[in-house]
Order: sequence, then structure tokens, then C-alpha cells
Amino acid sequence: MIQGSIRVAVNGYGVIGKRVAAAVRLQTDMELAGIADVATDYRVKAAIAGGARVFAATEESVQEMHDAGVPAEGTIEDLLSVADVVVDCTPKGVAAGNLERYRSSGVKAIFHGGEKHSLTGHSFVAQANYESAIGRDATRVVSCNTTSIVRVLGALQDAGVLVNARGVLIRRATDPWESDHSGIMNTIVPEAHIPSHQGPDAQSVRPELDLVTMAAKASHTQTHNHYWTLRLTPGTSRDDLLSALRVAPRIAFIRMRDGIVALNSTVELMHDLGRPRGDMWEVAVWDDVLSVQGDEAFLTYQVDNQAIVIPETIDAIRALAGTVRDGYQSIAETDESLGVRREFLARS
Amino acid sequence: MIQGSIRVAVNGYGVIGKRVAAAVRLQTDMELAGIADVATDYRVKAAIAGGARVFAATEESVQEMHDAGVPAEGTIEDLLSVADVVVDCTPKGVAAGNLERYRSSGVKAIFHGGEKHSLTGHSFVAQANYESAIGRDATRVVSCNTTSIVRVLGALQDAGVLVNARGVLIRRATDPWESDHSGIMNTIVPEAHIPSHQGPDAQSVRPELDLVTMAAKASHTQTHNHYWTLRLTPGTSRDDLLSALRVAPRIAFIRMRDGIVALNSTVELMHDLGRPRGDMWEVAVWDDVLSVQGDEAFLTYQVDNQAIVIPETIDAIRALAGTVRDGYQSIAETDESLGVRREFLARS
Amino acid sequence: MIQGSIRVAVNGYGVIGKRVAAAVRLQTDMELAGIADVATDYRVKAAIAGGARVFAATEESVQEMHDAGVPAEGTIEDLLSVADVVVDCTPKGVAAGNLERYRSSGVKAIFHGGEKHSLTGHSFVAQANYESAIGRDATRVVSCNTTSIVRVLGALQDAGVLVNARGVLIRRATDPWESDHSGIMNTIVPEAHIPSHQGPDAQSVRPELDLVTMAAKASHTQTHNHYWTLRLTPGTSRDDLLSALRVAPRIAFIRMRDGIVALNSTVELMHDLGRPRGDMWEVAVWDDVLSVQGDEAFLTYQVDNQAIVIPETIDAIRALAGTVRDGYQSIAETDESLGVRREFLARS
Amino acid sequence: MIQGSIRVAVNGYGVIGKRVAAAVRLQTDMELAGIADVATDYRVKAAIAGGARVFAATEESVQEMHDAGVPAEGTIEDLLSVADVVVDCTPKGVAAGNLERYRSSGVKAIFHGGEKHSLTGHSFVAQANYESAIGRDATRVVSCNTTSIVRVLGALQDAGVLVNARGVLIRRATDPWESDHSGIMNTIVPEAHIPSHQGPDAQSVRPELDLVTMAAKASHTQTHNHYWTLRLTPGTSRDDLLSALRVAPRIAFIRMRDGIVALNSTVELMHDLGRPRGDMWEVAVWDDVLSVQGDEAFLTYQVDNQAIVIPETIDAIRALAGTVRDGYQSIAETDESLGVRREFLARS
Repeated sequence: MIQGSIRVAVNGYGVIGKRVAAAVRLQTDMELAGIADVATDYRVKAAIAGGARVFAATEESVQEMHDAGVPAEGTIEDLLSVADVVVDCTPKGVAAGNLERYRSSGVKAIFHGGEKHSLTGHSFVAQANYESAIGRDATRVVSCNTTSIVRVLGALQDAGVLVNARGVLIRRATDPWESDHSGIMNTIVPEAHIPSHQGPDAQSVRPELDLVTMAAKASHTQTHNHYWTLRLTPGTSRDDLLSALRVAPRIAFIRMRDGIVALNSTVELMHDLGRPRGDMWEVAVWDDVLSVQGDEAFLTYQVDNQAIVIPETIDAIRALAGTVRDGYQSIAETDESLGVRREFLARS
Repeated sequence: MIQGSIRVAVNGYGVIGKRVAAAVRLQTDMELAGIADVATDYRVKAAIAGGARVFAATEESVQEMHDAGVPAEGTIEDLLSVADVVVDCTPKGVAAGNLERYRSSGVKAIFHGGEKHSLTGHSFVAQANYESAIGRDATRVVSCNTTSIVRVLGALQDAGVLVNARGVLIRRATDPWESDHSGIMNTIVPEAHIPSHQGPDAQSVRPELDLVTMAAKASHTQTHNHYWTLRLTPGTSRDDLLSALRVAPRIAFIRMRDGIVALNSTVELMHDLGRPRGDMWEVAVWDDVLSVQGDEAFLTYQVDNQAIVIPETIDAIRALAGTVRDGYQSIAETDESLGVRREFLARS
Repeated sequence: MIQGSIRVAVNGYGVIGKRVAAAVRLQTDMELAGIADVATDYRVKAAIAGGARVFAATEESVQEMHDAGVPAEGTIEDLLSVADVVVDCTPKGVAAGNLERYRSSGVKAIFHGGEKHSLTGHSFVAQANYESAIGRDATRVVSCNTTSIVRVLGALQDAGVLVNARGVLIRRATDPWESDHSGIMNTIVPEAHIPSHQGPDAQSVRPELDLVTMAAKASHTQTHNHYWTLRLTPGTSRDDLLSALRVAPRIAFIRMRDGIVALNSTVELMHDLGRPRGDMWEVAVWDDVLSVQGDEAFLTYQVDNQAIVIPETIDAIRALAGTVRDGYQSIAETDESLGVRREFLARS
Repeated sequence: MIQGSIRVAVNGYGVIGKRVAAAVRLQTDMELAGIADVATDYRVKAAIAGGARVFAATEESVQEMHDAGVPAEGTIEDLLSVADVVVDCTPKGVAAGNLERYRSSGVKAIFHGGEKHSLTGHSFVAQANYESAIGRDATRVVSCNTTSIVRVLGALQDAGVLVNARGVLIRRATDPWESDHSGIMNTIVPEAHIPSHQGPDAQSVRPELDLVTMAAKASHTQTHNHYWTLRLTPGTSRDDLLSALRVAPRIAFIRMRDGIVALNSTVELMHDLGRPRGDMWEVAVWDDVLSVQGDEAFLTYQVDNQAIVIPETIDAIRALAGTVRDGYQSIAETDESLGVRREFLARS
């Protein structure tokens, strides 16, 4: 049982890692032990300038970092020796190989959605299964798309209004910072397989969900956009749906009539609200687009792929550490620290 | 009753107009009487260089065209006086105002999908309702998205395998030639209203279709991409679906395993096949992505918004002219002249 | 002569207006009297949520704002009655019409680069001509591109190393938040006229500059990228150039070897540095790309079109108000308040 | 000395290879012996459908092609045994390794701009050095950018009006058909090194050119756009420049006043002119943007990276084969066969 602050290591300081590190620093019950990476570029330099302790993620990178003028304080082993929980944010393919090292260091480990469920045997979405992660030595915070599905469809399932769901996921092609030819241009790339993996992945957390997803990548860099056809239990009204979504955590409403008419509207809104990096931790559901026709509902929402799993990761840290036993208490603490909202704007 | 070749005028020489003019020239039973436009730019200059007779679409444009070095042979009135059928390809908002002029000139008129059904009281998709257009003085060839829906869902309805259909339409944002700030950049713009207009529009041709559509514009310029969840009559197999699509006109199969993995793959394929402008008149259905699960099917296809309505427009000319009474005969003639296919590549 | 805090009104709460308002709030010698706009959307709602006083920019918009649930505290006249200086950030075409109103209200006025030099008869870049604006009733803060040119070429001119400059300006096509068809897609749009207006515009501030610019819009939304061929006074070395740039205000170095390899690298870096909205107020010059060959230098830098004029605008407020007589003192205060830097990262 | 038709093999059937094959077929003095590739996708299937003989580029690919239903007629060795000249259009890195095989087969070989000058010791642009390639066993047709530079600056040098040239090259990021994450998104990526390689590469053909280039990749897929500052011999007029360009091969004028206002305008124009694939073999110089100020000229033109080297490649085949001794005779034959033009549109 961890005493005092939970000491958190972040391995991999990319899109997710830097956000996890920043969020850890906002928690009163956590401290950032340090970050590890192999990079020697502006990201690591900025981290150091920001006061983080930086470690080399591999033996070889110690020298490379030194040569690049970003001397590491040690290696990942040194970092693990002063950490209770490590959040692995290394690229897909690298992460899985790290689990044994974490285990042998006696450090609990959190992986992300790029990894398979089987790696840890546990997939995590706070509002769905926080308690089942308590005491485990490792869990996997599911991917951005899957997290959004579990939040939204899980909320409707919990409210007893959902029969099944068929979704089309329009994904961003690469992250906004990428310039090294990881993008697609002037096209859409459909997933070759139906169902796409997000449906089964959501079932790794909520097996009772009846859902099928199709997916495609579109030619933009910021945020995913989901379209759902929902079969409802007979008699479900539009208000029933809105109520079910309103009580669930980390879902917020947006409205066309407020000028939120496109994915980039929301990015601007987040900046207007003073959010760091324009991050949106909530699933943003278009309230005034949601339509119910007979026993069906039609729904579209937006998912900030860079930010949505950050609150879940913070909760997962507490769950593994075992310091908070009630998921909703952790959710409340996390959301308070970040400023997670139910409404971004005053309703009119 | 028209004797000899049908004399066709094209009013508006943009994306659709130039393709209609080219297709008319390929028909043995039609001749291109001329084109009319207000533009004085490269499009009109290239049309003249290509041998077309050019007319000023308005009184004012006579002088403007003369000043720009593209002297018109006369006005739209002169063109109408030597035409049996006019295909109106002017922009939305302009077209509706032209109907009275066409009527007073005694020229039958075809409008396109930007106009409302009520303008002509008849909406046209060749395989669905060719015969009902015979003898009319005007019809409306429905939009690219709607045409594709009527072709595909209509084929399944005709085969008796379709119960209902729920679709997500990812549209191109603007046409490839546009540079004057008509585009969207690095975003997706969802339609604010569900159902989007394409569903009801398809019902203007096939009222018995049970369908709902959601739509969005994505950040690319070429072709639309539809995703459908279909409810099937019990016992329908994947082969049943493929058979129904195979016998229907103007639907062709594409395959991921042939390297057709994105919307721009098909554009390249059309060029490889020697198609003018890389045009694809067929709805391109991904055969090896189509999935049947229980009583549901999941389907994605691609729609070349610049080209798909061209064969329908040629058929509509014949229907209004009344020279061919059998829709399938007209379809066969049109498809032969253009080179419309059921398979783009040898199956392997 | 203004006593106490300078009361600043912001008319037009868009890309520039919202940043000016935020920057005004950071100044110890200014207060934000309020903002005015005609919009009723999320931007205004977020401004109210952020504590700003909101006024209707026109008589008609009072009712519209009320109906939209964003009640204005009054009209622009009310706002002007409690302001010493108004910063006009309304769209091009609207702004010029406002000057007379500002004059009759006795409020000093700042316009932006969309307006012509002749509107105010004075064009402002702090480091070039702060003092000449003192006591004036209006000035024009030049556009983002022009500001960057005056900073960089002006610094070289001041250091006596520049003979002439020939530049190619690759501009962003529209702003990141825009989704209403103001973009270009998959193309480049060259300016039809050489020289493009930025060269003469820079000469409105620094008439002695010998420069010619060509310009084009490219298919991205964030930041401009300039390429310069500079003719140097004989004997000028690479170090001479770097030194001249290093001592000038609001120019910062970036480096390919730090992984700053593209325009979006810098946007990410600004976020990593904790900048609000990822704003970069500095011209970012690639230190390790800058090349000197004989009497010529070749230079590329990046300009954040949304942010670069913000510090100049703050200085212009002080100059018009006449509260600070020394331009470099104002620059220092502004830069301190915002966190403007000479180096973003530790040199290695 | 080759008797009768030159038998041409094309190794690598991608963007360049497919265009070379099509152009070879248009020549009365050449025949397409066949194409070789390792691909098994739509490109090869379409080639077979188009009547080409297809060979496996490697031993392993024989079986793979067979399994994919595109049986090869043999291997590259078989193809070489029936060819006089091979045009290597394989990817950079692969091509260089093929030279020895071509030599041992006694087949003359043409490489493209991805390879180094040193590979063959000869770099080819028809109008510059056709004759020097006669009788050689191999040459390298320089890259698209370099070809355009040699054509345009070479023409000015030949006319005696050019002192030096400083250019900024805005390149397309990837080819239009690519969808496998080779793109960049919403950014510009500057070349890290000045001068960029295109300047020295042009000097490999025309060593006397005094030029320096800076380069960047922008977020579009089709065609490059060059901006040049030219120092002229004293007294050179705008008409002198236009005359020099008009007499040089494979340069054509475009005009803003014809509505050719962006890179994609020209793509549309090529389609309007009936060009296969919308290909533009000519460098397209904006006539009405070209500006002369004192002893300087400012110039922008567009380069179709997919098509520009095709005529040069055809000429190079004849030069290596030695069947035509006069470069301008070959150029005339090639240009006649393709339909290369000096003006795309009637001048007004």
C-alpha cells in the first residue's frame, strides 16, 4: 500500500506522455518522478525547461542524449527505482516489451490502447470498471476511440435505453505535430475489415454492448468524428437520451447553434476556454444534431484523440496504487483538477 | 417527335456541363448544338479549341466574351432555337430561373440535383424510372449522392433482400479545380440536420426505400464515400447481395486486395484504364469489404461526384426526346458509348 | 494625458481581437474596458464566461445577441464612452468605416494590417517607429507578414549589413478555426501581381528598405513561411547576421537539429512551452538553415499570423496613450508580460 | 546500330513507368517490349488489360504475381533479352543496383532523377545535351524540378540575358495516388540545407548556370511551383525574356487572366485539352505575372512532376539507340507524337 504521494514515471514523452506528465502534476496525491525517452529533440528540451527530471529510456540513448546537450539523469532503471507506477506511452510495438522490466522492478504499469488486451489481461475505462483494477499490477487504458465508445454507449446501456449500436468512425490521419510523412493527402482510407477493431475493443471493457463499427481515415489531423445509428428500447425519447448522457462522466454537449459547426470549431473553443494545448478531455456530443425517429437515434460526436484518455490514465494510476477505492471519487478528483465539464458554454 | 439526331444544348459549361457535352458527342443519336456560359476563361477557350459552338448565356455576357477574345456565336436564345433538349448545368440558384425560358422556346429541359424535385415534378434515375420521363418537357437528374443511393439500394430492393438502410455519407468538400476559397481545411463539417437531404431525395425516385442518412464534408476534393448498415430479409447471404449488385447497371466492384485501398486509388485506376479526366461513372463497391453478419450487412462504396450523373443525363435526353422507349435499351447504348463496366479489373 | 490604467476597448472579437484582449489583461498599466462584436456564437459566450464585458458592435446586434442568450451590456458607443483607446479588429472593409465614430467619441484608435496606410497616415512597428506614434489619435499596426519583414530586415538594415532583399512568402490559406468554405484545397495559389503588397507595405514603415516580394497561398492553415535571398554588404559573415538578429526584439532562433523541421513543429513547441493557444509572438528564424555564400545570404523563417502582431498592438496602445515615451521601454514591458523569448530552447 | 523499331523495356511501372510506356507506344520508331514490376495490384492488372506484356522484376515475384492472378510472361532477364533500351523507373535505391544487370545483358539503360549523376556519368536534358548521349550505354534523365530549371534558365542563358538566378521551389509532398502514409498534412517542410540539391543538379547538365535554390514541401499532391529572382544582362526587356522562352522547347505560357490562377487550374486545363491523365509535359510559365524591374526579373512557373520528364525520356531512348543524331529532330518527333504545345489557349 502506497503511502503519501503516488510517484509516477512516464516512459515515452510524446503526444500522450507529455499530457499524462502535465496531468500528474495537477494531482494533489501524485508527483511526477520523471520521464524517460530516447528522443533528443525539442520535446525533451522543453520538458527539462519545464522542470521535469529526464531519464534515458535505453542504455544507448544515454550517450545520444548527452551528445545532443540534453543530459539524462540516468536510465529508465533509475527512474523506475523511484516510482510506484509507470505510465508507458512508448510507441506501439515497443510498449509490450517493457512489461517484464516493470514487473521485475516492482513497479505497477499502465499501457495504452495501442497494446492488446491480452498484454495485461485488463482493459480500463474509469466509469466502467475502476474497481476491478484495484490491486492489479498492470492495466491497459483503451484507445481514444474505444474510450469514447465506452463512455457514450456505456452510459446509454446503463440507462437501459440502448438495444444496439452501429457506428461509422471517421478518424484523423495522423497527429498535428507529425511532419515526417505519416500523413494521407486529399483522400479517405477505409478500414479494409468490417467490423473495425474498435467494436470488439469496447467489448473488452463492456462485453454486453451490441455494437459494430466501420472506420476510415480522413484527410485531417485533429480529432475523430463518430456517427452512430442506435436502436433504442421502445418508448425512449430524445430527452431520455440526453439525460442519460448528461449524468455520465466526461461527456459534454456542443451545439451547432453556438457556431460549433465542425471539428476545428471545438479546437478553437477549447483555446477560448483556456485549455492547455486546446485539449478536450470530454466526448463532445452535438446536442442539437441528435435525432430520434421511432425506435432509432442518430448521433454524432467528436473525440480529441490526443486528450481523451488523460483523465482515464490518472484514474488508472490511483486504481493500481490502490489509494482510492471508489471509482467515482477518483473521477471527481481528476475532473476537478483538470477542469472537466458537462457544458462548455451557457445554455441558451 | 424528334426526327434524326437529338440536338442537345448545354447551358453552363462547368464540372457537369463539360462532361455532358463530351458524352453527347459520343452518342450516335445525338449532336451537340452548342454550349452557353457567362465565363470568359480557359474553360470556354478550351471548348472553342475543341470545336464546340459557344453562346453567351446572358445578354451582358455577349460583350464580355467578345472583350475577352472568346466571341460568342449568339445568345442562349440562338442556341435554344437550334436545340431539341437543353441540359441545364448552371449553378444552383441560377438554374431554376431558366425553366420558363426553355418552355417558351419549346425546348425540353434537364436539370440537375442542385434543384428541387418540385421544379420539374419529376426526378430521374435511369434504371428506376426512365419510362415515366418519356414525353415530359422537363426532368431533374438527381444529385451524385442520390444517384448512387438509388442505384445501390434500388438494386437490393429490387432483389428483395433489403429491409432498411442507414447510411453515413462522407462527402468531398469542393471540386478539384476550385481555388477561390470554396474549400474546408483540416477538419470535418457534419451536416447540422439528421436525416440529411439525400435520403428523402432518393425517396423522390424510389419512395418505398426505408433509409436514413447522416452526412459530413471531409477535407478532400475528389469523390464521396458512403458507409451503410443494411437490414436484410432473413436468410440473405453475402452472395445474394453481390449477385443483386452485379446484375444492376452502373455498379462495379473494386477490391482492397487489388490495391484499391483509398478514394484516390480509384482515381488512379480510372487513369490507368484510359478514362477521360479519370472519370468513374459507376458506383464502385468494395467487394472484399462487404460484410454480412446475421441479418445485417455492412457496405462501403465510392461515388465520383463529377462523373456519376453523366450516363443518367444522356438517358434523360433520350427519355425526354422520346426516341427510345425502353430504359434498358438507352442504358445499354449509353454504357456502350462511354465504356461503363461491371468489373474494372480481371477477378483473381 | 491618460492617468492611471489605460482603458482599452476591443472592437471585433475574432482571431486578433481575442488575443489582444488577453494580452491587455496581462499588462499592469492597462485594463480591458470591454469587447464589442456582432457575433452571438461560442466566441462571445466564451468571452463572457471568461469575465469580459461584452457590447453590441451595431444597433441591430443588440437584439440578436439578446435573442441568442448573450445579452450585451450596451452598444459600442457605451463601450467607447469608458475607453481611452480602441483596438479595431473588425474584418477588412468594416474597420475603415469605424474611424469617424472613434474620432467623434474622442477615443484613440488602432487598426490592423487589413487597412490601408492612408486610413491613419501612420503605420506602426514598435521597434521601427514607436516614438512617431506618440500623441497621434490613430495608427495602423501592419499585417503579420509585414511586421515580420520589418523586424528581420529592419534589424539587418540597422546593423548595416543589408543591401537588398528578395523574398518569397508562402502564406497560410485561412485561419485554423475557419470551416465556412474560406479554404483552398490541394493547391497553391500564387499572387497574380509581382511585387506582392507586403514589400511596399514594409516600406510604409521603413522606406529605405530595398525589397521585392512574391507571394503565394499554400494548402495549410497555420503560419506563414518566408524565404529570402539577401544581398549583403561586402564582408558580412554568417555570425554578423546572427548577431544582428539576436539583438533585435521579437526574433527567436529555431533549429532543425532540435527537431523543428516544419511549420507544425513550432506550433507543437509553443504548446510544449505552455504558450496560450500555442501562440508564437516572435519571428522564428531557422538558425541552422541560414546560409551565407559570398555576398549573399539565404534565410527562412516562420511567422505565426495569429499572434505576431499582438505585442506590437500592446505597444501601439501605449504609444497612442502617450504613457510611455520610450519605445524600447514599452517593448520590454510587453515582452516581459507575455514571455517573449530570444531562444525557445537551450542551445546545444 | 539498332535496325528498325527500338525495342523498349520499362522496369518499374509506377508514376513514371506507366507514362513512359504509354509514350513509347505513341512513337513510330519504337515498340514497347514489355514492362517489369514486383507489384501484383491494380496497376499491373490494368497494364495487362491494356495489352502490355508483363514480366517479373525479381525471381521471387514470379510466384507472387502468379498467386495474385497476374501471371508474368517471364522475368526481367527475359524482357531484357528482347529489348534494346531499358528505362529504369524503379524506386530510388533500387535503380542503382540494376545497372550491372543491364550492362551484362547488353541493353542500354536510362535512369531517372532519383539516382546520382555519378551512376551513369551523364545527365540528360534533351535541349541541352542530346548529342552527348549518342552512343552511350547509359544516361540519367534528371528530375522533374531539375528538368524544368534547365529548360527555363537554359533558354535564358542561351539567349544571353541571364546573369544569375535565385529560386524558391515549393514542391508537392507526395504523388496523387499515394495513400500509404507518405504525405504531410497542414504544414510546410523546408529543406534543411541551402542550397537545395536542385541547383547543383541542374549544373550537372548546364555547369555554367549561376543559380542557388531553396526548397520546401507544401501540403498538396500535384505539381511543383517555382519562384525565381533573375539578374539580367543590362537592358534586357520583358519582351526579350518572353521571346527567349517562346523559342525554347517544352515551355508554354499560362495566364492569370485566362483563369489559370492556381496549380489545380492547370490540372483542369490539361483535362479540358484532352490530355491523358491530365498530364502537362511543358513547363507552364505565368506570362502575365512575369515582372521586370530594372535589371531583375521575377518569374513563377508550374512543373507537373508526374509528366515533365516523359518527353526527355523518349528523346533519351533515341539518343542512346543512336537512331536520330540531331537532338532537335528527336524533340520535334517526340513533341509531335505527344501534342506538346507552346500555347495552351488562343492568346487574347
